[in-house]
Parts: sequence; structure tokens; C-alpha cells
Amino acid sequence: MGRKIALIGLGAMGAGMAGSLRRAGHEVHVCDARAGVAQQFAKDGGVACATPAEAARDCDIVVSVVVNAAQTEDVLFGANGCAAAMKKGSVFVMCSTVDPNWSAALEGRLQALGLQYLDAPISGGAAKAAAGQITMMTAGRPEAYAACGDVLEGMAAKVYKLGARAGAGSKVKIVNQLLAGVHIAAAAEAMALGLREGVDPEALYDVITHSAGNSWMFENRMPHVLAGDYTPLSAVDIFVKDLGLVLDLARATKFPLPLSSTAHQMFMQASSAGHGREDDSAVIKTFPGIELPQKK
Amino acid sequence: MGRKIALIGLGAMGAGMAGSLRRAGHEVHVCDARAGVAQQFAKDGGVACATPAEAARDCDIVVSVVVNAAQTEDVLFGANGCAAAMKKGSVFVMCSTVDPNWSAALEGRLQALGLQYLDAPISGGAAKAAAGQITMMTAGRPEAYAACGDVLEGMAAKVYKLGARAGAGSKVKIVNQLLAGVHIAAAAEAMALGLREGVDPEALYDVITHSAGNSWMFENRMPHVLAGDYTPLSAVDIFVKDLGLVLDLARATKFPLPLSSTAHQMFMQASSAGHGREDDSAVIKTFPGIELPQKK
Repeated sequence: MGRKIALIGLGAMGAGMAGSLRRAGHEVHVCDARAGVAQQFAKDGGVACATPAEAARDCDIVVSVVVNAAQTEDVLFGANGCAAAMKKGSVFVMCSTVDPNWSAALEGRLQALGLQYLDAPISGGAAKAAAGQITMMTAGRPEAYAACGDVLEGMAAKVYKLGARAGAGSKVKIVNQLLAGVHIAAAAEAMALGLREGVDPEALYDVITHSAGNSWMFENRMPHVLAGDYTPLSAVDIFVKDLGLVLDLARATKFPLPLSSTAHQMFMQASSAGHGREDDSAVIKTFPGIELPQKK
Repeated sequence: MGRKIALIGLGAMGAGMAGSLRRAGHEVHVCDARAGVAQQFAKDGGVACATPAEAARDCDIVVSVVVNAAQTEDVLFGANGCAAAMKKGSVFVMCSTVDPNWSAALEGRLQALGLQYLDAPISGGAAKAAAGQITMMTAGRPEAYAACGDVLEGMAAKVYKLGARAGAGSKVKIVNQLLAGVHIAAAAEAMALGLREGVDPEALYDVITHSAGNSWMFENRMPHVLAGDYTPLSAVDIFVKDLGLVLDLARATKFPLPLSSTAHQMFMQASSAGHGREDDSAVIKTFPGIELPQKK
């Protein structure tokens, strides 16, 4: 049975998720900070709204797919924010990558307003979002899950339920970003050493992707380096941010993360050198004394 | 058609490879520095020999599966070494993980003795060795490959041919070890942060192995941590050695490897703390302030 769902933030992930919800038979009310984006989406169905408050007003579920905690604060509590407009007992589904401690606190802030909250960071990229095949790393009270019904499954191939207290989903997402960031930087370091040593990079890619040195990120990102194509699918600056969140979380309990801090420096070096908006595989450009494959 | 093949070094990898060669119909002459090991192997067929020289004497192919370059030097040029005993035109197949520049130089040293040389580091672990399913990363002159015939395929699921000059195989192996070592240390760092934050480690493993943060090593090694079982399949000290080789190679051309050097320090910290002979996943024991799962 179709539900009324607000989806806020029609970026690469949000647009695909909104489309998946629409295909699943829901009435999707959308808004985006960029002019015209919501209207464009609504041409194929759904309701274009000007603000989060307007989008959320008649809905049971609000799915927020913005960049970070600051934008989420604005979606909820800014001018035209949706927190005041949401129906009592409706649920706010927070899909951004954020500080888990901030997410845990948000649960209490929304509870005080009579609203449910689901900590629900996502993973999978734009193609999986468009296909309704993302992964959601969720945590929240049973009432929050009950308010969502089976709506999450309309967007996601897999909905991990990681605890009854918000923050656990964000913690797992942060650990995933730790590995993703370190693995991209390690892939770059390995490919850079191979190039330095005169190894054929295509042969190196073939061997590594069939060996114990492989990672999801090596396999996914190094073709960009081999093609000399740094068109951003996910940008260097995303990992400046996300490894920053990883380090912030650990610092809050004074916990050491030697590899994460090293990888973070590598992404910051790449960003500072002017590559922040290039594909994250451009972290390989921080290695001097090598000749990278050129775009054909 | 069966060939006469010497295999030197019946460790976890060598014993499996010798068995694979025997099953492939070859006459395998084996020796091992430990008393009785060769005799034990020969109970099921093959010829037990006391020294590398004795094993190599009548063979066309000598496969060396010892720990490092120093042991390989001893196998070839030590008292009872095989270099002087090998037939002109026979081939020495070097399967250890070594400095690629040393391997490249060895080709010339053996050529001066009328011997062929194949740079052929291996990957895959004991189970794959026993099944004849390892990966070989090879490089050498066409005459060296010709001298091997199809013997390599009797031990390996995949024989990568990476160049006509020894050293290219070892370079690719070194890059693989860079990634393998960094990924084990990163897996430990990620699991340690999860434990520090109170995340359920089994759930974390489930999510990560289905997400973009996955690596071959995370998937393979973290079950040891979850089970609290540090029985060494591959020991911490192997990565003290192998990441040391990675750093030596890069230092020879003054090339920076920030993540490799950090991971190397983590393995050395684990070794110095007394965990050198435990499973390499014991690098997680360098993280203070967490409670690791205990062995059931």
C-alpha cells in the first residue's frame, strides 16, 4: 500500500532513492536546495515542494539524504525546516554520514518533539540507489522501525538492523568509511609503487584483483587511474570529510588510528594541491616521481 | 610426461606444491633443512634427499620454496648448495618473496653458470598449495620458460607471465604484499574502533563484508579475531619481513610509502610486544583500551 513519503535532497543518491520509492508505489514529496531540481523529478510523478517543511507536512516518513550533519540540522531546524511541520509520531530517516554521537543525540531531540528517528546511513553509490539496491545501516527504537513499515526495503537491497539505540548505524558506517578511505589511499600507494618500478599497470591490476591483496576499492577505483580519467564519481573532498569524521569519533575517546590519520593526510594533501573535486582515486597524484597513465 | 623435479623446502607451501607435482606424474626429489621431513614426504612417493645438491643432481627443474633471499642463497651457494650440482641448461624456479633487485641480479649470476632462472613468487596459502591452485607471479627469459615446460601449471591455477627479465614477478609480489599488509592492519584498526565504540563485532563483520569497505584480508583474517584464535596461519613476523621488503624497494629509489611505513610500525609494535609468532591478525592487540573477543 502506497504511503506519503518526503524525500529531501535529490543528489546522486537521493534522486535514485526517490525514484525507487515512486516505483514502489509511494507518493513521494521531494525538495532540493537547487532551484528546479524537485520540479524536474516531479515531471514523472510525485510532488515538488519548495522547502523541507512543505515536503514533510502531510507525510508519515521523511527521508533526509543531504551531505552532512550541518545540512541535516538545517533540514530539520533551519528556516523552513521540517521538524516543526512533521506530524506527531512520524519518523525522520537520517541517511547522511555523520558523527555517531551527534546522531545519538538527535534521537533525543526529536523524541522531545514527539517524533521518531531512525539512524540510517546508506552505502552503494548512484547506480544502486537508482535500482533500489543500496545498503542501509540502521539503528533506532522499535517504534521508529514500526513507523517505517516496509518502506526502507523499497530503497535498499539490504537493511541492516544494528541496535535499538540511534548511533549504532552511524558507527558501522564510520567504520566502513575508515576502511574505504584507507583502501583507496592504499590502492593509490600500491599502484604508484608499481609505476615507479616500471611494472605494467594493467598486468598489475589483473594480478592484484585475483590475489590476496585485493579490496573492493582497489578493484573499483584503479580503473580510473589506468584510464587517466579523474571525473569524480566520489570526490577527494568526500574522504577529507569522512576520514575527518572517523578521526573525530576516535578522538572523542582518545583512541589512536594510525592508518586512518595517515590516509586522511594523503587526501588533504591531494585536496590542498587542487584535486579536491576530482575523483578520489586522484589521491595517487600526491606521489611524486611517477608518470600516470594519460586519458586516451 | 613425467619430469625429474627437485623441490627444496617442505614448509606449508612447499609441501603442498611437491604433492601437487607428484600427483601430476612427476618424479619429485625433495629436501628440507629439518630432519625427517623429506623422508616423511617420500613415504607416499618421490625421493628424499639430504641436501639441495643431492636433490638437484639428476633434475631438469629445481623449485625453491624457502623463506627468504638469505635461505635461497644458502640453497644455491651454501655448503651442499645446488648451483654447482645442477645440469647445464636446467632451471632454478625461485618462489620466495624477495627484494626484486636481488632477484634480477640472481638471473645474471646463474646465467654465468650456464643455468636458467625463473623469478616466480607465489601466493595463495597452504590449502591452495595442496590443491595445486596457487598463483605464480613469474618473469624470466623465454629459455627459462621453455625449460619449465608445463610443470608450473601442475602447481598453479594461474601462472602470470610478467616480463622477459627476472624481477618483474617479484615486483608484483611486493606490491601485493604492500596491499595485503596494509589491509590486515586496516582491518585490525577498523575492528578495534568498532569494539571501542561498542559495536557488535559479528554484525560489523557481516556489514563490512557486504560493503565497499571490504578487502580480501578483512574477510579472511577478521574471523580469527571474532573467534579469539590467533593460531598462526601466517604470522605477524611475516609482515614485519614483507613490509620491510616493500619499504626497502621503495627506499632504493627514495620513494615515499606513507601507509606501508605506518602499517610496518604496527606489525613491529605487535612483534615487539611478544606477538610475532601469532597469527598476523594479532596486530589488533596493539590497540589499547578495547576488549577483544575471547576464545570459546
